[in-house]
Amino acid sequence: MSRSNTVFIGRKPVLNYVLACMTLFKSGQEEVLVKARGRSISTAVDVVEVIRNRFMPDLKVGDITIGTEKLTSSDRPGPTNVSTIEIKLTH
Amino acid sequence: MSRSNTVFIGRKPVLNYVLACMTLFKSGQEEVLVKARGRSISTAVDVVEVIRNRFMPDLKVGDITIGTEKLTSSDRPGPTNVSTIEIKLTH
Repeated sequence: MSRSNTVFIGRKPVLNYVLACMTLFKSGQEEVLVKARGRSISTAVDVVEVIRNRFMPDLKVGDITIGTEKLTSSDRPGPTNVSTIEIKLTH
Repeated sequence: MSRSNTVFIGRKPVLNYVLACMTLFKSGQEEVLVKARGRSISTAVDVVEVIRNRFMPDLKVGDITIGTEKLTSSDRPGPTNVSTIEIKLTH
């Protein structure tokens, strides 16, 4: 599976991820996938909205899918469920 | 505009909103709209995932739309942009 067109959202400032997506588009990608889980889901939506409103008005937001991943953590016994989001962007 | 089938997500525990959605479905609604903005967006995804995984395996997640709203706050000059999400659920 190629992940060269995927941007994973974490705890850095929104503009870092905006720049990462823009760089992928400028490098010739026609489709960029923004992925996040847990509390970073809201940041993922912020990233997409900032790109669309400030930098690329012609950006198209395609399928948005949500899901659940099971994580195992050393802090808790058993798996923890964490929500995920994937937002497909095309240019 | 009727909002009787809409659940707005705020800062309460996830299960409060899960219960609100389930109550709407039990009262005969076939479609429930989950709306959130800002940091509550991740909670909205959690709510949908909990309903689907724990209570209603036959729940269908329909269109997910994201957007931006302008808010005016007394703390800051000028409008603030806040991201929004709407998740359509059908049963």
